[in-house]
Amino acid sequence: MSQAELSISEKLKIIKEKHSQIYEILTTNRIDCWIIFVRETGTTPDSIMEFVVGNDIVLESAFIFVIYKDQLKKYALVGSFDANNEIEKGIWDEVIGYEHGIREHLRDKIQMLNPKKIALDFSLNDVSADGLTHGMYLILKNILSDYSDKFMSAEPIIRAIRGRKTITELKLITKACQITEEINQLMEPHLKVGMSELDIQNKFYELIMNYNVGFAWPKYQNPMCDAGPGKEFGHISPQSNSYTKKGHTLHNDFGVKYKGYCSDLQRMWFFGRKEDVPQELRHAFDTIAQAIQLAAQNIKPGLEGWKIDKIVRDYVKNRGYKEFMHSLGHPVGIKAHDGGALMGPLWERYGDLPKTLLEEDQVFTIEPSIKTENYGMVALEEMVIITKTGCKFIVEPATDFIYIN
Amino acid sequence: MSQAELSISEKLKIIKEKHSQIYEILTTNRIDCWIIFVRETGTTPDSIMEFVVGNDIVLESAFIFVIYKDQLKKYALVGSFDANNEIEKGIWDEVIGYEHGIREHLRDKIQMLNPKKIALDFSLNDVSADGLTHGMYLILKNILSDYSDKFMSAEPIIRAIRGRKTITELKLITKACQITEEINQLMEPHLKVGMSELDIQNKFYELIMNYNVGFAWPKYQNPMCDAGPGKEFGHISPQSNSYTKKGHTLHNDFGVKYKGYCSDLQRMWFFGRKEDVPQELRHAFDTIAQAIQLAAQNIKPGLEGWKIDKIVRDYVKNRGYKEFMHSLGHPVGIKAHDGGALMGPLWERYGDLPKTLLEEDQVFTIEPSIKTENYGMVALEEMVIITKTGCKFIVEPATDFIYIN
Repeated sequence: MSQAELSISEKLKIIKEKHSQIYEILTTNRIDCWIIFVRETGTTPDSIMEFVVGNDIVLESAFIFVIYKDQLKKYALVGSFDANNEIEKGIWDEVIGYEHGIREHLRDKIQMLNPKKIALDFSLNDVSADGLTHGMYLILKNILSDYSDKFMSAEPIIRAIRGRKTITELKLITKACQITEEINQLMEPHLKVGMSELDIQNKFYELIMNYNVGFAWPKYQNPMCDAGPGKEFGHISPQSNSYTKKGHTLHNDFGVKYKGYCSDLQRMWFFGRKEDVPQELRHAFDTIAQAIQLAAQNIKPGLEGWKIDKIVRDYVKNRGYKEFMHSLGHPVGIKAHDGGALMGPLWERYGDLPKTLLEEDQVFTIEPSIKTENYGMVALEEMVIITKTGCKFIVEPATDFIYIN
Repeated sequence: MSQAELSISEKLKIIKEKHSQIYEILTTNRIDCWIIFVRETGTTPDSIMEFVVGNDIVLESAFIFVIYKDQLKKYALVGSFDANNEIEKGIWDEVIGYEHGIREHLRDKIQMLNPKKIALDFSLNDVSADGLTHGMYLILKNILSDYSDKFMSAEPIIRAIRGRKTITELKLITKACQITEEINQLMEPHLKVGMSELDIQNKFYELIMNYNVGFAWPKYQNPMCDAGPGKEFGHISPQSNSYTKKGHTLHNDFGVKYKGYCSDLQRMWFFGRKEDVPQELRHAFDTIAQAIQLAAQNIKPGLEGWKIDKIVRDYVKNRGYKEFMHSLGHPVGIKAHDGGALMGPLWERYGDLPKTLLEEDQVFTIEPSIKTENYGMVALEEMVIITKTGCKFIVEPATDFIYIN
């Protein structure tokens, strides 16, 4: 059996853990009603459904979480074919399976509940809170025309649900990281001077197959396998004409998916002995490893993510390098880039994400990088869990190259 | 190697075939500019990107197709890390990789092109044309504030691109159907009275694994394996306490994914000899098989889909049955429910989809169903390709139960 995806019962366990967070999240944010409004989620998913619904639906459906008479009530309005499945899951106070259309059922339910606010899944900043399509927004505005002045972004709800990992989620992410490190270690005896990036990637695939896990991002770029200085950093796949050489590095960005949860780790190998590492490479590597420690020492709940980014960015610049043109770290969960917060700079492209507060039980990468003059990219990527007072590394951080002689 | 997904080069071939359709589609629809505006498509995909871009992107990106000075021009505005990948694909007239934000680049490009209309991916009716999120719509409206009165739905563009299958796509869908039928045939010797639905599903999984193909919809409901009259029709998974019995049927809804393209076929087995089939079951089965032939005889380009649905629905009702509470047929492609058109009734939940015209090279299912009094659901599902003058079955349609003695 593939270990890439969660079984139905494992998924349902996480969904129940998440549902138990919702009363507090809604009341803290003073939002009394949240509607997830979707259709054909196999084609156009709303990513928060993974955490609070757990399966695709076909026809127009509304999942309503509402504080009604001081209690959390949960409703599923779905096409009649999807109704039995929702009932069987046992997570809804009421399941309504409609035949011809959702319009009247949804209008009646909202009129009965008469909420003060209606949070919907749209967001300027946070892609993971932006699962409502524009077409579905227009439909909902039409159905709930008397309530459209109460519409607001569900961003704070979704960010909290997605970001705050449950006990089960933390276990699965930890296991994904451990498998990634095991595979990295198993690669060591296979790495040789003269292999192409594609050779290396294919060898990785053999090892990955034995673990029966999935890929944290598309396979052709995972693992990434950058040999030496030849290639630009970025989203290119491993090449058949780019080879490992004595005195050069292999940089690798690699993540697996274990029971639906991802890892995302970068490691570096050096073809030669420790004493053969050129001064330029050594200085860059040490800067990166120390920058990661510096980040970990400063991360704690309640800080805005950009502050950690700035500490590390400044450190790398003070060590004489051009700043890295990406964010320091992103959340990891069911996606390698899980969204919901960011340890990144206050650049336009990141919107307000770097201003969101770090919270306990979030999982982040720390991944500064340096482009060296003569040896290509030097970078590591670690993963941490934010604790009450700081953070802890999920697997041991890399402190040196892995040497291939 | 898995046969579930397309290789990069195979996908690029289909993308080039699709790009060669766009000039005609834009000019026929009198639309001079189409913008796909997306971010983090690994989390929130716009499904049309599969056909005209072919990979996920990370930062806010705009893919622009424009008729400029009577020629189709194609631009990709992406984050700098995604730029090399887009350049390597060789399908864009220009790739702009930005560092800090897309805003100025996008505004400048649109000001230079000065289009009369700007088609965007939102739609009330067609989920596959509704990939623009509401948050991204708000961002785009802000960036292109001088042009927002030119915004319109890209529905006709997307429907045509997605619906009109290219030669390569038709080959892959045909192969997916053939594999599905082969697996159905291989199941025959394994089917026995007294197996549970879950036993049967697990046996299917063994056979599917040998073909190394993927699943056209989530695995726990695929194949669907309905034994006898016990279970409600709908989206429930096979049960461990529902067994095949002598004199009962097994109904199965099953689809594989072969190199990214789906099949979706229903077949029925009967536990007993042909002469043992009760009159009630025989009449229902023959009605379904004849209803499918009736549909196939009437399908041709230029008809609205609801007309075919009505012919078949009336036929089933005239044979003395309650009408089926779903549409007669849906498009199939990279998804089992591929969207873009529908042979369905004019019910609220289907919006205007049943009014779209059937077109040459579309692929549809035909899947009427009957709920019998004593023997559960009777249904078949076939797949057809629409031709210049009619349609043709992709694999031989079922004309009888498969008998298990």
